[in-house]
Amino acid sequence: MTIVILRIGHRPERDQRVTTHVGLTSRALGADGMLLASDDKGVINSLEEVTQRWGGDFFARSVESWKREINNWQSGGGKVVHLTMYGQNLPDVIDEISIEESIMIVVGAEKVPPDVYHKADWNVAVGSQPHSEIAGLAVFLDRLHAKRGLDPLKKEMPGGNLKITPCERGKIVTEV
Amino acid sequence: MTIVILRIGHRPERDQRVTTHVGLTSRALGADGMLLASDDKGVINSLEEVTQRWGGDFFARSVESWKREINNWQSGGGKVVHLTMYGQNLPDVIDEISIEESIMIVVGAEKVPPDVYHKADWNVAVGSQPHSEIAGLAVFLDRLHAKRGLDPLKKEMPGGNLKITPCERGKIVTEV
Repeated sequence: MTIVILRIGHRPERDQRVTTHVGLTSRALGADGMLLASDDKGVINSLEEVTQRWGGDFFARSVESWKREINNWQSGGGKVVHLTMYGQNLPDVIDEISIEESIMIVVGAEKVPPDVYHKADWNVAVGSQPHSEIAGLAVFLDRLHAKRGLDPLKKEMPGGNLKITPCERGKIVTEV
Repeated sequence: MTIVILRIGHRPERDQRVTTHVGLTSRALGADGMLLASDDKGVINSLEEVTQRWGGDFFARSVESWKREINNWQSGGGKVVHLTMYGQNLPDVIDEISIEESIMIVVGAEKVPPDVYHKADWNVAVGSQPHSEIAGLAVFLDRLHAKRGLDPLKKEMPGGNLKITPCERGKIVTEV
């Protein structure tokens, strides 16, 4: 399965930290990459640096038009899931989504254009309560993998020069 | 099961948004409340306002000393889980944690004091990759509930004056 995140509505002056969290979450929970519909080299660089140091092949890059990315994705046969508290509840749609092979997950900041709701194959609510888009994405990715019998927390990320060995207390970090 | 979040290391000048996300995530994913080891009325007020408008009985309050809160919790028989990328991997410990009746989840910002690692009954990594504490908490809560046969996304939150009806496209919000 290919999973790409499309982050829209990012405002460089105030969303850097949250969008970086969106990217780190995507990577840690088994997505292949993140497209950022905004020109913000700071976020892209910090995500690339994490992959370089911690391994795996997660990609992050800026794109000019979210609309074009969605259109291209769908033309190629991929499906688009838009995460929104107004959508259908995740437990009700996860079965049908999890059989797809290429999924783009749209994660908006505030004020998502109505077009996104119309273009998306699914508008999905990770619960219909006010929430965090980071948490919503995390639960979505975790449940999506679980439906396919995978656990993203057990995935190895080869390459990189830093590695943590889990332990009961303290910190064990190996630098190669 | 009682689940309380203890947020430590919060710096009012730069963590307001992330800590608010931690609180919203806690509430949306079935925790009972959040203790904030910092004096930040802005965060507390916005979480209380969400509960007032959207229902449920989630509480949020400032506490003076995280150490005292952990000690009190443990004296009363409760267990403490500290979320950290250096800890034991979640899939390896979730079974033993999920049989407990009272769990305090410590969510740190940067630089968690070593004492937290020592006092915690479990140091738990939601994967050993750099991450978002919001995403880590979300996955932890979701899997904890799942182990007990519960789905926090299906939980009703009675009271409040706003309610969303899930739908395929658009937004249906009822105001009472």
